[in-house]
Amino acid sequence: MSDKKKMVDAITSMEEDFAQWYTDIVKQAELIDYSSVKGCLIIKPAGYALWENIQADMDRRFKETGVENVYMPLFIPESLLQKEKDHVEGFAPEVAWVTMGGGQELEERLCVRPTSETLFCDFYKNIIQSYRDLPKVYNQWCSVVRWEKTTRPFLRSREFLWQEGHTMHETAEEAEARTVQMLNVYADFCRETLALPTIRGKKTDKEKFAGAIATYTIEAMMHDGKALQSGTSHNFGDGFAKAYGIQFTGRDNKLHTPHQTSWGVSTRIIGAMIMVHGDNDGLVLPPRIAPTQVVIIPIQQRKEGVLEAAEKLAESLSELKVKVDDSDRSPGFKFAEQEMRGFPVRIEIGPKDIEQGSCVICRRDTREKYTVKLDEVHDFVVKLLDTIHNDMYERAEKHLKESIFDAKTYDEFKDIADNKPGFIRAMWCGDTACEEKIKEDTTVTSRCLPWDDTEEISDTCVCCGKKAKHLVYWGKAY
Amino acid sequence: MSDKKKMVDAITSMEEDFAQWYTDIVKQAELIDYSSVKGCLIIKPAGYALWENIQADMDRRFKETGVENVYMPLFIPESLLQKEKDHVEGFAPEVAWVTMGGGQELEERLCVRPTSETLFCDFYKNIIQSYRDLPKVYNQWCSVVRWEKTTRPFLRSREFLWQEGHTMHETAEEAEARTVQMLNVYADFCRETLALPTIRGKKTDKEKFAGAIATYTIEAMMHDGKALQSGTSHNFGDGFAKAYGIQFTGRDNKLHTPHQTSWGVSTRIIGAMIMVHGDNDGLVLPPRIAPTQVVIIPIQQRKEGVLEAAEKLAESLSELKVKVDDSDRSPGFKFAEQEMRGFPVRIEIGPKDIEQGSCVICRRDTREKYTVKLDEVHDFVVKLLDTIHNDMYERAEKHLKESIFDAKTYDEFKDIADNKPGFIRAMWCGDTACEEKIKEDTTVTSRCLPWDDTEEISDTCVCCGKKAKHLVYWGKAY
Repeated sequence: MSDKKKMVDAITSMEEDFAQWYTDIVKQAELIDYSSVKGCLIIKPAGYALWENIQADMDRRFKETGVENVYMPLFIPESLLQKEKDHVEGFAPEVAWVTMGGGQELEERLCVRPTSETLFCDFYKNIIQSYRDLPKVYNQWCSVVRWEKTTRPFLRSREFLWQEGHTMHETAEEAEARTVQMLNVYADFCRETLALPTIRGKKTDKEKFAGAIATYTIEAMMHDGKALQSGTSHNFGDGFAKAYGIQFTGRDNKLHTPHQTSWGVSTRIIGAMIMVHGDNDGLVLPPRIAPTQVVIIPIQQRKEGVLEAAEKLAESLSELKVKVDDSDRSPGFKFAEQEMRGFPVRIEIGPKDIEQGSCVICRRDTREKYTVKLDEVHDFVVKLLDTIHNDMYERAEKHLKESIFDAKTYDEFKDIADNKPGFIRAMWCGDTACEEKIKEDTTVTSRCLPWDDTEEISDTCVCCGKKAKHLVYWGKAY
Repeated sequence: MSDKKKMVDAITSMEEDFAQWYTDIVKQAELIDYSSVKGCLIIKPAGYALWENIQADMDRRFKETGVENVYMPLFIPESLLQKEKDHVEGFAPEVAWVTMGGGQELEERLCVRPTSETLFCDFYKNIIQSYRDLPKVYNQWCSVVRWEKTTRPFLRSREFLWQEGHTMHETAEEAEARTVQMLNVYADFCRETLALPTIRGKKTDKEKFAGAIATYTIEAMMHDGKALQSGTSHNFGDGFAKAYGIQFTGRDNKLHTPHQTSWGVSTRIIGAMIMVHGDNDGLVLPPRIAPTQVVIIPIQQRKEGVLEAAEKLAESLSELKVKVDDSDRSPGFKFAEQEMRGFPVRIEIGPKDIEQGSCVICRRDTREKYTVKLDEVHDFVVKLLDTIHNDMYERAEKHLKESIFDAKTYDEFKDIADNKPGFIRAMWCGDTACEEKIKEDTTVTSRCLPWDDTEEISDTCVCCGKKAKHLVYWGKAY
C-alpha cells in the first residue's frame, strides 16, 4: 500500500459516515486529542495554531471598533449568578461547582464561568457612575465550562475557548447598533478570513440567549446539510443592569439604567471550517488562516542542488507562512500529509524541474497543478492564495444556496426535513407552540429570521396555518 | 488644588509606605480592580494591554526556539494529580476542587489546574512512542488557580495568568540544555523588553519546584530591597515520566524514559516591572511594552490649527503606539494622567509652539524636557524611546548592584538582614538545616546559587561555620 493510500485510508469518506469523517479528520490532521478528563479535549499544535490565527484576526477587527480587552475571574459566586432569573435558569443546570479550596469547604460555592455576564455586571456596577463613563466596550479571551452530556471535538465540549464581549451603553439605540455591528464583524470575518458564507438573522424567543431581549446569529451550512450556529450577538436591554443595580447619572442629571450587549465566537468555528471546506483527503484550510500556507517538498532531496533550490524558493516567499519539508520521509507521504493537514499550496521541486528552471505548484482545494517558472513563483503563489480563498468561498456559497428549500405546506416541510438536507425556508406565525411542534415532528429547529431575505413566500404559518408573521430559516443543526 | 496635585495625592509615597504605594499605583493607573470573588482580581484594559504585549514578545521568542502552543484541559482528575508523590504533596493543600457538575455529584473530584505537569505527562504518554517523536516542546497560555490565603495584585492571587512550557527529551543533556535555554529566554526578555535586570541562578533543594531535580530562577530587585522571583525553569529528570509510565523506543531499539522540563512566567512579572521602575507619580512603563508609547497633548486645543498640528505629529509617528489626547480635560490633568499611567513620552504642542515650528517633548522616566523642531520629532522620539529603555535598565541595574551586600559572619548576616534591604551574598554549607535556621532567625530565604558570580568570599558556611560549598544570594522576597 502506498504511503498516500495508507494515510487517506485513515479517514472514513464523508458519504459513508459524515460524523465519522469529521472525527477522523480532527484526529488524523492532529488538531485535537482526547484527554483523561471526560468531555474535555486537548488542542494540539495544528489545532491551536488555527485558534491563534483566528484570535489575531478577530482581535484586530474588534480593536478597530473600539473594543478593549480585560480579564475577569474564572469563578462566579453562587449568589452573584442568581441575580438575573432567566440567566440562572438557563445556565445553572449545566455548570461545574467548586466546593472546596485550600483544604477547606467553601462558605459559598463558586461556579466555573459558563459565560461572564454576571461578573461583568458586578464590575460595571463599580465603574459606571456617569454618562461620561459610557460606553464600556470590553472583551475577554478565555475558556468557559458547560457540563455537556454528549461532546464532539470543537462542536461541543465541557470546556471550550472563546471570546466574550460585554458592553454597556447610554441608550437602547446604541446598544442595538453595537449588537448588530458585532454580528457584522463576525460575518465579515467568516467571509474574508475563513471563506465561510453565513446567513445573518435574528433568533426566535425560544432560541435566544437566557436573559437577552434579542439574539442575532450567523448560521453556516455544513457539507451534510446541517446548520452550525457560528457566532451570536445579544442585546440585553436593561434587564441585567436592573437586576445588578447598575445606574448612571445622565446628561439630564437624572439616574438612568444602561443598556447592555454581549457577543461571542468560540473554537466551534473551527468545526464549521472543517465541515464546510474539508474533503475525503482531509482538511482544506482557508489560506488566510492556514498556519502553513505553502509547503515546499523537495523531490530526490539528496541530489545536489535540490535542497538549496527549495530553500531559495522559500526565501522568495518569506512574507508568507512557508516551510520546506526536508524530513526523512517519502515525497508520497509528504503529499498525503499536506493534503490531510490542508495546507493550501504545495510546491514540488526536483532535479528535472531545476533543469527546466521551473517547479510544480499544486493547490489543495482543487488538486490542480501548474508548472511555473522559478522567477515567477512569488507572484503566482501570492495570486493563487487569493484565488483559492475566493474559489473556496464561492463553492461554499453555491452549496449554501443549493441547500435552501422552500416549504409552503407542512407536508412539504416534513418531506424536505426527511429528504433534503439543508435550510427550510418557511413562514411562521410567531407562536412558540409551532416551533415546538415542528421540533417534535421533525427534529428541525428555527435557525433565524434572516436579515437579507425578506420575501414573504406565503400568507400562512407553515405549521398551524394561521396568519404568518415572519419568514424563518429552519434546519437540523449541530 | 491643581488637577495634577489631586491625582498625585492619590498615591502614597513609596518612602512612607511601600506596600501602600504599590497598591495605590495598580489601582490609580487602572491596571486592576477588585472583584466579588475573594482573592481573584479583574485585570482592566490598561493592565491587560501590558499582558498582551508581554505575551506577544515572549511568544515570538519561544517560537524562535521551536516552541509550539497547545491547550490542555482546565481540570485534573484527583487520581491523575496523585501519581507523582512530591508534586501532589506540594500542590494538594492549595488547590480548588470541583465536586459537582451538571447538577450531579462527580464520581471523582477534579482539581482546577494549579499547574499542568500531570496533564502534559498523561498526554505525552499517548503521543511519545519512539525517539522520532522527541523532542516535544509544547507551551500553553492560560490561567491557573492556587488557593492562597493572602493575596496582592499581580504578586499573589488565587487565579493568575501565565504560560507554562512542558517539554520531553531523548536525553538528560538535552533536557538540561532546554531548561537553561528557557531561563535565558526569560532573562533576555526581561532585559531587552522590560528593562529589568535579573540575577540568574539555581534554587536550593529546599526552594525548588515540587517534583523537580533542578529549578533555575531569575530574581529581580524591587525598589524596597525585596527580591521577586520573576520566572523559573525546571528540570524534572525522568521522575514524572516514570511515575506516568512514559517510555519510548530509542535509537538502540530498547525502551527508555524521556527527560522532562517545565518553565513559566506569570502576570507577576507586571508586579516586578511596577516595583522596579515606578515612582511617586505613578507607573513608569518600559517603552517596548507600553500600550501607549507617545501621548500628544494639545495645549489650547480649541485654537485654530492646534488639533491639526497634533494629528499631523501623530501621523508622522504612526509606526509607534501613539495617541492624541483631545479629550475635554485640562492639560494639567492630562499631564498628571500620563505620569500616573507611565506612558514613556509626552509631546506638548500649542499655538506658541506651532508659531515657532517646534514642540515640547517630555520623557516620563526623568521628567527631562526638550524643545524639538517639528520636522525632527520623528527621529528624535524613535531615538529617545531607546535612550529611555537603556537608561531605565541602567538605573535598575545600578540599584540592583548597590543592593548586594557581603556577609562573612552570621552577625554580619543578621545585621544586613535587619538594616540593609537587598541581596545578601554569603557562603553556605549546602545543608537545609542552615537555610531553615536563617529563615527562622531573619525571615531571609535563599534566592539562588548565582550563575554569573562564582567568587568564594569565604571558606565557611555563614550560618554553621562548617566548610562552605556554595555562594548563595539570600534575601527577603515577595
